[in-house]
Amino acid sequence: MASSRPRDLQLNENGRLRHFLTIEGLSRDLLIRILDTAESFAALPGRPVKKVPLLRGRIITNLFFENSTRTRTTFELAAKLLSADVINFNIGTSATSKGETLLDTLRNIEAMHSDMFVVRHAQSGAAHFIAEHASPRVSVINAGDGRHAHPTQAMLDMFTIRKHKGDFTPLRVAIVGDVLHSRVARSQILALNTLGVSEVRVVGPRTLLPSDARSMGVHVFHDLAEGIRDVDVVIMLRLQNERMDGALLPSEHEYFRLYGLTDERLENAKPDAIVMHPGPMNRGIELDSAVADGPRSVILQQVSYGIAVRMAVLSMAMQSQADLEVEA
Amino acid sequence: MASSRPRDLQLNENGRLRHFLTIEGLSRDLLIRILDTAESFAALPGRPVKKVPLLRGRIITNLFFENSTRTRTTFELAAKLLSADVINFNIGTSATSKGETLLDTLRNIEAMHSDMFVVRHAQSGAAHFIAEHASPRVSVINAGDGRHAHPTQAMLDMFTIRKHKGDFTPLRVAIVGDVLHSRVARSQILALNTLGVSEVRVVGPRTLLPSDARSMGVHVFHDLAEGIRDVDVVIMLRLQNERMDGALLPSEHEYFRLYGLTDERLENAKPDAIVMHPGPMNRGIELDSAVADGPRSVILQQVSYGIAVRMAVLSMAMQSQADLEVEA
Amino acid sequence: MASSRPRDLQLNENGRLRHFLTIEGLSRDLLIRILDTAESFAALPGRPVKKVPLLRGRIITNLFFENSTRTRTTFELAAKLLSADVINFNIGTSATSKGETLLDTLRNIEAMHSDMFVVRHAQSGAAHFIAEHASPRVSVINAGDGRHAHPTQAMLDMFTIRKHKGDFTPLRVAIVGDVLHSRVARSQILALNTLGVSEVRVVGPRTLLPSDARSMGVHVFHDLAEGIRDVDVVIMLRLQNERMDGALLPSEHEYFRLYGLTDERLENAKPDAIVMHPGPMNRGIELDSAVADGPRSVILQQVSYGIAVRMAVLSMAMQSQADLEVEA
Repeated sequence: MASSRPRDLQLNENGRLRHFLTIEGLSRDLLIRILDTAESFAALPGRPVKKVPLLRGRIITNLFFENSTRTRTTFELAAKLLSADVINFNIGTSATSKGETLLDTLRNIEAMHSDMFVVRHAQSGAAHFIAEHASPRVSVINAGDGRHAHPTQAMLDMFTIRKHKGDFTPLRVAIVGDVLHSRVARSQILALNTLGVSEVRVVGPRTLLPSDARSMGVHVFHDLAEGIRDVDVVIMLRLQNERMDGALLPSEHEYFRLYGLTDERLENAKPDAIVMHPGPMNRGIELDSAVADGPRSVILQQVSYGIAVRMAVLSMAMQSQADLEVEA
Repeated sequence: MASSRPRDLQLNENGRLRHFLTIEGLSRDLLIRILDTAESFAALPGRPVKKVPLLRGRIITNLFFENSTRTRTTFELAAKLLSADVINFNIGTSATSKGETLLDTLRNIEAMHSDMFVVRHAQSGAAHFIAEHASPRVSVINAGDGRHAHPTQAMLDMFTIRKHKGDFTPLRVAIVGDVLHSRVARSQILALNTLGVSEVRVVGPRTLLPSDARSMGVHVFHDLAEGIRDVDVVIMLRLQNERMDGALLPSEHEYFRLYGLTDERLENAKPDAIVMHPGPMNRGIELDSAVADGPRSVILQQVSYGIAVRMAVLSMAMQSQADLEVEA
Repeated sequence: MASSRPRDLQLNENGRLRHFLTIEGLSRDLLIRILDTAESFAALPGRPVKKVPLLRGRIITNLFFENSTRTRTTFELAAKLLSADVINFNIGTSATSKGETLLDTLRNIEAMHSDMFVVRHAQSGAAHFIAEHASPRVSVINAGDGRHAHPTQAMLDMFTIRKHKGDFTPLRVAIVGDVLHSRVARSQILALNTLGVSEVRVVGPRTLLPSDARSMGVHVFHDLAEGIRDVDVVIMLRLQNERMDGALLPSEHEYFRLYGLTDERLENAKPDAIVMHPGPMNRGIELDSAVADGPRSVILQQVSYGIAVRMAVLSMAMQSQADLEVEA
């Protein structure tokens, strides 16, 4: 099982997932293993007893430096369905506000026997920083760091796509909206390219697309109809109102006129194209209600599959801890 | 078990409790069934192991749009004693504040595999609205909506009355205070009449009694001594200070002088009358400490029985889900 | 097992720990029993399944009137590792803010079948007050009350000392810093003297040492080098910035110059002396980073052992409840 690939902070010596910080550097095989593991959990919610005892007696700590009820809840649920104990550590009200350094806070929470940290932070690179300094007995899962990465969101999107489309290789996927500021988009692009889709496109106004888009392995479109022509998957991004203050765009109305997804515009995509959105949606800005609630929308499935994908990541990372215990 | 009674949002095809939104429309039989089920749970707290595995692997989500630590805690406890997993979804800090619609938020939480929503909302009808739009796999429990209903509070009151008085039919019950603004009183009146008590009275100043009191099947009294004469049960309501701003009453002191329950006034009731209050109490306003802590007060028993009654409602609603699973 | 020693609020008729409010009045035997019980839990964190079913079906309520994420989290963890159900009752947002008295709030939470209250309060004596008024079926654990006591912190410190030094009797221990305002120091001094160490010293400026220090059975030093000369254990206290406003000290810089622990100064202690701190640390004020992260620092072990010690106290107090159940 030993791997000859170059060492990576995210993998242990056996090539197993130790931390899950970013899609970058992960192999197609590993991503497929996450999707396959999630598949085994996706059937649970339909059963009366939704739990499995995989992580019984394990402690998972949610370290949310940035508030996100929804993401925290899905991780909490995933942990509970694996029978782990969950501690929600509200960083804002804690010792960091008493002058303690971030590293001291981390060392303290580690000393409380956490097996895993689920980290959300407004600063890019925060989860990496924590993983670099964490004890060997702790796994770190990135639940969103600044503009950098949101890898579990990307993987639940991949899971949703595979559920509907099967094979990734022939697919054309368009990501529409504020790609520039989106950690979700960044992670999606990496995952889609690693999984070998035929083409990834980004669609949006110049001010909301990264200048190095082409080097990211994507095709750039500024016209929505053009951008989604003949695609299999349309991923709409959330327009973060708080980022729009700087007059990057004339108005929400103007944005919808140019980049809002309507049934009419969706005609340009393949007839069986699916429509995705990471939520929360702004109806009438990013997309029309007819599209959001229409037959091609898989937006709520994304949420459901998110639990299964997070269960997969948590249990795989804990499995790498088991390697450690065998050695010890 | 199939029922020929007209369909009701609260009942499934087998006449089982699917949602618990209001006492209105529920049969005497069903209310008795809730009380009998609660009886089976009321003995648990005395035991070293207070839990039963009835709802193991089920997910109950507390959706509290209005803050209420105490009610949330009793529901959380009831759920945990049934071995369910509980998610506290703080709506204030969540996506609704990011511009998402209530319905989108609901759909999202549903997609997280919740089996049941416990809903508290400042607006009358909110729990109904949510139940109407919920997926068939989700039960909705009303934990208080505006001035409309607080049915689990009413049922724990009925449970307490039955524990002390046995048969409902010969009883005279007086409800004292701000009946007009009280969802608790509204639900109590419906429950008492459905259970067939001999007489329900409301006692209070004109400004705090509903104008349609008589059509609610109650007798109206403006004098406290008269109102509680020969009753078996005195239910004091909480005076919501925040509602008193509008000068509906001269002062707290004046209120106590006219409607505060004292040992002396309690002489008018039957010698074995019990005194109830939904809490939190304002001592010296709604009632004297001598009464609150006296031998006829059953106020703390109400709190204890509240856990058993909520366990009954949660488990019965989940049972109706099981019907669904058998069909599927 | 019956004891002839005078009755104490903290002990039941069999001399077992019923409440844990203060070190004062507890025997050396009982403190040793707490340490021995903690020893049995200290091995758990290294195992894949960290839980024991000792308190399954028991309800432990965290009553935190004063915010302390870290202490609350360690108690919550200790309770969960014992398989208890935990309720976090946020007192600030609850009924006390609706005009209810503290005692009514307590009676209500008791009525919710709590087996144990873990209490944190800004006022000295609050935990005692609650224990005096609690029902016989409820144990109260003091998680810090005003300037008075923080007995679980003191016991985790004793546990840490015993782990490193074995026998208490030959030890010299120095407590450095703001002893005057520290509930931690007060509890440590009592515990160290009860466990029979050779000498307890307090070290700090006149303004931060209690005037009755000598009657507390400690030796007073104003010079750090002198105070820690030949000691086996150096306990640094946290400098509570919020208490420094009153100009008790010139500045943080000046404080470090006089009382900050550096490697150089630590030379005065025994070569194998250990350095402790209750956290959160102010690096560069109470102690140098070289000391905090150095080979003699056991600061993070204190945190880890804190879980085991809290598990010991919770399980011993619950054991005294079992005495009650046998009688009933």
